[in-house]
Amino acid sequence: MNKIGNATMVFENAPRVIGNYSIVGDKEGAGNFGQYFDEILDDDTLGERTYEKAECKLLEQCVRGAIDNAKLSPLDIDCVVCGDLMNQITSSSFAARSLNIPYIGVFGACSTMAESLAVGASLVNAHYANYVACATVSHFSSAEKQFRYPLELGTQRPPTSQWTTTGSGATVLGHGDKGVAITHATIGKVVDWNVTDVNNMGGAMAPAAFDTIYQHLQDLSIGPDYYDLILTGDLGKLGSEVLIDLMENKGIHLSSNYSDCGQMMFKNNQKTFMGASGCGCCASVLNSYVLQRLRNKSLKNVLFVATGALLSPLTCQQGESIPCIAHAVSLKGEDYV
Amino acid sequence: MNKIGNATMVFENAPRVIGNYSIVGDKEGAGNFGQYFDEILDDDTLGERTYEKAECKLLEQCVRGAIDNAKLSPLDIDCVVCGDLMNQITSSSFAARSLNIPYIGVFGACSTMAESLAVGASLVNAHYANYVACATVSHFSSAEKQFRYPLELGTQRPPTSQWTTTGSGATVLGHGDKGVAITHATIGKVVDWNVTDVNNMGGAMAPAAFDTIYQHLQDLSIGPDYYDLILTGDLGKLGSEVLIDLMENKGIHLSSNYSDCGQMMFKNNQKTFMGASGCGCCASVLNSYVLQRLRNKSLKNVLFVATGALLSPLTCQQGESIPCIAHAVSLKGEDYV
Repeated sequence: MNKIGNATMVFENAPRVIGNYSIVGDKEGAGNFGQYFDEILDDDTLGERTYEKAECKLLEQCVRGAIDNAKLSPLDIDCVVCGDLMNQITSSSFAARSLNIPYIGVFGACSTMAESLAVGASLVNAHYANYVACATVSHFSSAEKQFRYPLELGTQRPPTSQWTTTGSGATVLGHGDKGVAITHATIGKVVDWNVTDVNNMGGAMAPAAFDTIYQHLQDLSIGPDYYDLILTGDLGKLGSEVLIDLMENKGIHLSSNYSDCGQMMFKNNQKTFMGASGCGCCASVLNSYVLQRLRNKSLKNVLFVATGALLSPLTCQQGESIPCIAHAVSLKGEDYV
Repeated sequence: MNKIGNATMVFENAPRVIGNYSIVGDKEGAGNFGQYFDEILDDDTLGERTYEKAECKLLEQCVRGAIDNAKLSPLDIDCVVCGDLMNQITSSSFAARSLNIPYIGVFGACSTMAESLAVGASLVNAHYANYVACATVSHFSSAEKQFRYPLELGTQRPPTSQWTTTGSGATVLGHGDKGVAITHATIGKVVDWNVTDVNNMGGAMAPAAFDTIYQHLQDLSIGPDYYDLILTGDLGKLGSEVLIDLMENKGIHLSSNYSDCGQMMFKNNQKTFMGASGCGCCASVLNSYVLQRLRNKSLKNVLFVATGALLSPLTCQQGESIPCIAHAVSLKGEDYV
């Protein structure tokens, strides 16, 4: 059985990260992780006529970057697993059209990077595929257009809001006996604690992160200290505090080994209030800073927990609260055997 | 290796269909498969205030029906894999909230039933899960609202159009040594032959169906006669003819063993032009008529090929053609060992 506990898949063949890539916009490039990203865009339209086409191109470039980094060609990749925030995940589908690789489209809002890694690792581990590319993308301007207000309005942002990342991250998984490995994935349930404030996504998503991390620790019979780093994305400042409180209430102490990508992405003077959001946030941080630290052995054992808010503008208009989800992926450092 | 050829996963443990369920609207119930569906709705609002809430409830009821049919409780199900046509696949996410089962959200437009079965079967076959529920839903009224025109306008439909099915289908997969089995899945590529007419989805999707069926036959080194039934969903009348022509051009003769769910769903006097569409069409036909025939041994070997058009209203407005995809799942009859 490759399953332990209630919701955790075990990858006994430990699929390896054999390539990765990250691209972000200039604001993200000027943030705390600027030195780690593979590419920082000068022009967030990427020369396209619309932000949606730019987002699609961003994803395609990032997947190609990861495939190059793995010293492979798109023809070598058995499957690309990706998703994004656009209606009908068109950035992913149109990127998959250009890539011409068998395609599994997934949707988990901002949890998509962990979802795609979980599905991708399960395919590689069970030898359904030799190589799988896992990726996601978000773009500030296309997300604002679709989920919030026209950019031209200059609408004032409330203090609990987060800033959608312009960025993409891609990971190529394959077989091998060295390199960063994926050993477990915990598939989350949809959790909804009745938050209705669409400007407080961190607060809405924190219970989902709590649920999945708690489930993961239970399934593996471990404490949080098992990990050098438990990294959520993207609860932001407020959501992270809520998560720490929720864990504390269960007697689980998230200490200095806990961080959140959304909280860390931007500098304090970048006026993003609670920090970053968007599925490109934790995807780009994972595929730069985190993988580099796993490779240089300053991290050995990371739980990557991507969180998503599964609402749509229409569900909010129809009075629904915000259902959220988190998926967790366990990454082991360079020396894992 | 659990992969053969370029794009086909092999399920050597042959996950079994241990439960299934189908629910459709009254128009679908009055069509050609009326006697096979588990439930025909009198009221396509299901008592809800909006069509989107109705669609969500329809999916939830259908998944619960399949779990009941498997003589299990939702607590027994390790994972639900589902998707739908709504922006941010909210029908699926909100149904997963009620079901309280770990959730993998997928999107493949009308190819979603095959995508969810492919992912679900891969999880069961590799023992990541004991039981997985795979499902999808569509609703005529929510789809018209989102993709086309307000229902109240009574907009005239062009002769190449198809009618979005109000319906849902759900399949519970598990381990076992008897019952209908899933033995292979071929993951499709995105195929776009530059069709831009959003009222001719069948024509747009036919090349994707061709690509995946051709790949599947190549990967398994078989001819189309290997199958008692090759069943696409949902090309409709025109799309089916295009597919037959495309196959013929490659020297592959799709004969009386070929059918299309969209073409068969409605009776000629039901004024649906090219037939049915929507991911609930082939999902409901598979989970009623097809599985019943596999169980009563009048079918032994079925290739289920669900096709999806991966456009959004916005990509059309921005001048894009229609990217399409098809995934294929190979089902073996009751006697398979």
